[in-house]
Amino acid sequence: MPIILSGKVARDELKRSLVAKIRALQEKQGSPLCLAIIQVGDRPDSTAYIDAKKRFAAEIGVTVRLVHFQESVKQEDVIAEIKKLDQEKEVTGIIVQLPLPAHIDKHAVIDAIDPGKDIDGISSASVRRWSAADDVESYRPWPATAYGVYQLLQFYKIDVQGKRVCIIGRSELVGAPIAAIVGKMGGVVTVCHSKTVDLVKETLAADVIITAVGKPALITAQHVRSGQVVIDVGLSDASGGKLDEEVPRRKLVGDVDFEKASVVLGEKGAISPVPGGVGPMTVLALFDNLADCARI
Amino acid sequence: MPIILSGKVARDELKRSLVAKIRALQEKQGSPLCLAIIQVGDRPDSTAYIDAKKRFAAEIGVTVRLVHFQESVKQEDVIAEIKKLDQEKEVTGIIVQLPLPAHIDKHAVIDAIDPGKDIDGISSASVRRWSAADDVESYRPWPATAYGVYQLLQFYKIDVQGKRVCIIGRSELVGAPIAAIVGKMGGVVTVCHSKTVDLVKETLAADVIITAVGKPALITAQHVRSGQVVIDVGLSDASGGKLDEEVPRRKLVGDVDFEKASVVLGEKGAISPVPGGVGPMTVLALFDNLADCARI
Repeated sequence: MPIILSGKVARDELKRSLVAKIRALQEKQGSPLCLAIIQVGDRPDSTAYIDAKKRFAAEIGVTVRLVHFQESVKQEDVIAEIKKLDQEKEVTGIIVQLPLPAHIDKHAVIDAIDPGKDIDGISSASVRRWSAADDVESYRPWPATAYGVYQLLQFYKIDVQGKRVCIIGRSELVGAPIAAIVGKMGGVVTVCHSKTVDLVKETLAADVIITAVGKPALITAQHVRSGQVVIDVGLSDASGGKLDEEVPRRKLVGDVDFEKASVVLGEKGAISPVPGGVGPMTVLALFDNLADCARI
Repeated sequence: MPIILSGKVARDELKRSLVAKIRALQEKQGSPLCLAIIQVGDRPDSTAYIDAKKRFAAEIGVTVRLVHFQESVKQEDVIAEIKKLDQEKEVTGIIVQLPLPAHIDKHAVIDAIDPGKDIDGISSASVRRWSAADDVESYRPWPATAYGVYQLLQFYKIDVQGKRVCIIGRSELVGAPIAAIVGKMGGVVTVCHSKTVDLVKETLAADVIITAVGKPALITAQHVRSGQVVIDVGLSDASGGKLDEEVPRRKLVGDVDFEKASVVLGEKGAISPVPGGVGPMTVLALFDNLADCARI
């Protein structure tokens, strides 16, 4: 069996120093750090993600202010609320839970967030900045999933410098920032996507595979070889259900057929599971970003 | 000998339809299209680049308004001028000739350009947008060098879909946008840089090599194999002089040792020369962007 890159283990370990950091910042500023979350509508997956953030915030002593709008809210009203939160000294960071309803231009909304409070790192100003960063550590805040992948690799001492890293998926919020951060770590990045003719050839040529598509069993035994590192950032419903519908006891899976891939990866390989891999790291990274915003 | 991907030939051919497009836009709006160029200081290389743009503008019937500032100008004065140009109906597009002196924050200056007039495609808003574009043709304006590379590939009917494209260099203004545009064309992009351990291995594995570093003879016989396509976006002084110093009859070279690489590429290969390759395409692309800004 390969080494399991557990995001839970890494998160619990890294959480300790985050709590200490947050406590020190709180003492310095005389009040708790506060995360403002904007939610529009009632998608159950959004609510579940927000609940996870609220739970983690409570554990580490961060206040959460949830601003909830009806699905039908006007874009200008959401933007007006953000501009108000931008001004409030008590608010350390602001996130807009995505996706937004179709009548709202998500970029117009997100770009209303003050760059100093954009802890998701996804406003236009943030994207331009992290695209141009010299290295990982000199820039803050990175988009949370990308930073979570970075911290997971660091925690398990996986050095990607000069290594071939195959990244599958190039979405604005996940694939693209992961490609950027791995590039800044010195990885030689190849980005694959739906038009890639020979995915197997690409994944086999890599030292590290990072997949962020959302398609179960996209990566299986034939895509991997012994000794590779596989990071699974995908998330899907195992029985084909949509993530925005409420399903009791839903089983979530990643892009990788964990069992079959693990056999091939062997003892010298490593793989992150779903759930319990990149997911917990993403929540941790978000609050790491919050602490950085408080510090800067 | 490989096919020579001549930017001069492609530019002269594509210029005809651009002239027709610009004439139609001029008739529609009742006045010539106008490009405003901001120059700060007197770097001779900047002046040479601006002169090339002025010459091309004159050939295609576009007015140029050059706004020149002393090296010592205050950042706020440059920004104030841009905001004025943003408002002027007669100004179709605005470019800031880079680099700027060290006391000026180039991003603060560039982000003052209205996105509808940012024909260089390099403001934060533009970077975020082209990073997230679905494909090449649905987005405008792309950074000029990247769009020039795209048009050169299109002109010579080089299809990169599903092909392995090795891009060397990841600069904000050249390497990164080229990686983005080639990815949107369906290429499987690998980005190499100074930390890449085995550059020869990467270039040999590729179908197309695009180099944008600025280091003479970075790519030579050992880096290429028969039948590859090589696009040279590098630019250096052949005798090691700095580009910001005035050198009479300077000889410019790219990143590729053209002679040695050509022998290996052979009849089935293709290569773009320097000068006369991507350079002329970049100027064309800039004015294509100007026409798009007038149209939108």
